[in-house]
Amino acid sequence: MELFFDPGFNGNGILSENESKHCVNVLRHKTGDTITVSDGKGYYYTCTIINAHHKRCELKLVEKKHFKAPDFKLHLAVVPTKSIDRFEWLIEKAMELGITELTPLLSHHSERKKIRTDRIERVVVAAMKQSLKAYMPIINELTPFDRFLKQNKCDDNFIAHCYDTDKKPLKIAYQAGQDCTLCIGPEGDFSEKEVYDAIQLGYHPVSLGTSRLRTETAGVVACHTIHLLNE
Amino acid sequence: MELFFDPGFNGNGILSENESKHCVNVLRHKTGDTITVSDGKGYYYTCTIINAHHKRCELKLVEKKHFKAPDFKLHLAVVPTKSIDRFEWLIEKAMELGITELTPLLSHHSERKKIRTDRIERVVVAAMKQSLKAYMPIINELTPFDRFLKQNKCDDNFIAHCYDTDKKPLKIAYQAGQDCTLCIGPEGDFSEKEVYDAIQLGYHPVSLGTSRLRTETAGVVACHTIHLLNE
Repeated sequence: MELFFDPGFNGNGILSENESKHCVNVLRHKTGDTITVSDGKGYYYTCTIINAHHKRCELKLVEKKHFKAPDFKLHLAVVPTKSIDRFEWLIEKAMELGITELTPLLSHHSERKKIRTDRIERVVVAAMKQSLKAYMPIINELTPFDRFLKQNKCDDNFIAHCYDTDKKPLKIAYQAGQDCTLCIGPEGDFSEKEVYDAIQLGYHPVSLGTSRLRTETAGVVACHTIHLLNE
Repeated sequence: MELFFDPGFNGNGILSENESKHCVNVLRHKTGDTITVSDGKGYYYTCTIINAHHKRCELKLVEKKHFKAPDFKLHLAVVPTKSIDRFEWLIEKAMELGITELTPLLSHHSERKKIRTDRIERVVVAAMKQSLKAYMPIINELTPFDRFLKQNKCDDNFIAHCYDTDKKPLKIAYQAGQDCTLCIGPEGDFSEKEVYDAIQLGYHPVSLGTSRLRTETAGVVACHTIHLLNE
């Protein structure tokens, strides 16, 4: 099944210009074909194309289907890697597994100080469509870690780090069903002060196993651990 | 820490030509520097460079350290993706998490019918060095799935597939401490006959959660599940 994404769509009417182009020009859909559109808010609309226009593809609703929201919120707050490919890969995989919010972080050891949110959104949307998710996560702008710590209102927060201090494995520290935030540091880790500040604010320091993992691997592994514990 | 890999090294003597070049030409190590070499069989050799030759770098042993072998064998048997980048990425991540054997499979729905084993080995070695693993996995040639099923001698074998049949989640089907083989299919899944044949030979059909995962994500998620259950 292929999925189109249009956050403004509500069943009948015109598909967004971008998705009209993809539907008609790229995938060569014709008038009379049936397609499925997600609004990223839990609804799938199965529609018939009544005018296969490459900019304003007109649709008629056949069936509207609602998907239950995820049982728990999973907010991934991660310092982008130096290589944008590795970061985009992490986002794709996190989306495949399922996240509800994403915040790129600016940390003391950040090698990447800027990030194009529109590019991140494109990766998120593509992965959302590919993995047939019904909900589009919230995507935040690049946020300095100290500001993030003050703003984040989640109940159950974890910071993964590699310092040799008292920390539990994430699989022990997390309780199934809880909303949570996972903070994943950059190559070179969060600074000791950043870890200390987070712990002072009630963040649980956690380890992600015995292997030395790259940032993007740590992000995927942490998201997967949360999902596995909720299954 | 940076790690060099030379399967023939035993402490004193000459580093392989490839690693000598990397050590002296790329990383600019000089006579008198200390480096660490892994033999991929569980030993790390900390050595002093006594002649920083770019083809025949001569080393003197300072300390030999042994690492315990992994507690369980994890054999990843996976159908390479059409995109070689995605396959190489999977191998990198599987190595970071830890595998003891890798077999690329040729399956009914394979889009990639050839694979360069030397290229796979380069990815494995790079990931092994990066993630500081002491053991080099066995890497097999591309093997037709039916032949693989006849050859594979592991006790506890799993086949992940997406057909709507009776199967357990991997996290329930696997018992910690067991050696195991994980079979991961291609885009388009194993054929129904392949799944049937595997089950006839005692392979446990398993699911990897509720999300629709790409082949390379399924491979990583499966390896991580096994590691998490063994932690």
